[in-house]
Amino acid sequence: MARGRATDTTALVAAAAETFRSKGYRNSTIDDIAEAAGISRPTVYKYTRSKQHLLDLMVDEVTGVMTRQLEDVMSSGEPAQTRLRRMISTHIASATSRRTFYAIVFSEEVELSDAGRDAFRSWAHARTQDFRVLVQECLPPDSPLDPTVVANLVLSMLSTLFRWYDPDGPVGPDELSRQIEQLLGTLLPA
Amino acid sequence: MARGRATDTTALVAAAAETFRSKGYRNSTIDDIAEAAGISRPTVYKYTRSKQHLLDLMVDEVTGVMTRQLEDVMSSGEPAQTRLRRMISTHIASATSRRTFYAIVFSEEVELSDAGRDAFRSWAHARTQDFRVLVQECLPPDSPLDPTVVANLVLSMLSTLFRWYDPDGPVGPDELSRQIEQLLGTLLPA
Repeated sequence: MARGRATDTTALVAAAAETFRSKGYRNSTIDDIAEAAGISRPTVYKYTRSKQHLLDLMVDEVTGVMTRQLEDVMSSGEPAQTRLRRMISTHIASATSRRTFYAIVFSEEVELSDAGRDAFRSWAHARTQDFRVLVQECLPPDSPLDPTVVANLVLSMLSTLFRWYDPDGPVGPDELSRQIEQLLGTLLPA
Repeated sequence: MARGRATDTTALVAAAAETFRSKGYRNSTIDDIAEAAGISRPTVYKYTRSKQHLLDLMVDEVTGVMTRQLEDVMSSGEPAQTRLRRMISTHIASATSRRTFYAIVFSEEVELSDAGRDAFRSWAHARTQDFRVLVQECLPPDSPLDPTVVANLVLSMLSTLFRWYDPDGPVGPDELSRQIEQLLGTLLPA
């Protein structure tokens, strides 16, 4: 539920995300979203043109900030393993602070507009490619690990944190980063 | 699309899964499912009482066989690391051969019946507990790894193979198992 009345599109998207998460996208009406946002149905249409538009905006929530942060990491000139660690913690920070958006984007992909779905898939593809290149830099030349397989496995693990991670639980995002680095010891030796 | 006319519930569930995967559960009608199954609408109702019942049966496809296989592994009396390797390859074999069912169960969870959702969540919880116990047995006593975190991370990675793994691609399920074991070198040293 939104904490107060939504007064911009960002707040409306957040309220819509809570609604989609609990009822599913298809079962959520504009009236449900208006109620969660504490505004009237006509006011909803002041901030968005459709329910699907709100869903497409959730893709931007998942991809927008992180794209810029990951580009900073990629171009930092730091050693490959430092960049890989930073890339992992950037994904963790994003996935743990935007769990509802991740849950929706990953389960309602079929409901996105064609443009929204294309944008999300291109984004995911580009992130996998970046990750693959970096994994390849980190691995010794004789490693039996396939960088494409590793990139897909690790990114799946990071993008599905919403399924189990509880930000109010005993493990904070920093400790989660350390656990993942330790688990991936082959890629990231201490 | 189903290869021929569905002549039992199992074949109907498979045809329904293809339909749900391409159109989404909510957007799929009984007529769509009948068409994919190559049967008439009344014949659909010979094999199932509702669309939601078909969705609930997809949970059984994901959980049924694997539960028995994992119980065999758990009770085999083999060393912990052997059991962990076998548990990982059991999950891989299931997730790579039932990709459509996994995709649907993981994205349409909100649409399951209350009983279906409870069954799926209890099953997932029990599998995480089994995995956690086994991870704990594999780790040295001074390991900084948290078995609960590791169990959730590895199971997320395995249950979302449907998002990227292509069974017709260059990496078969056996090689995928080897890659994952190698990646998790901290848990499974060579």
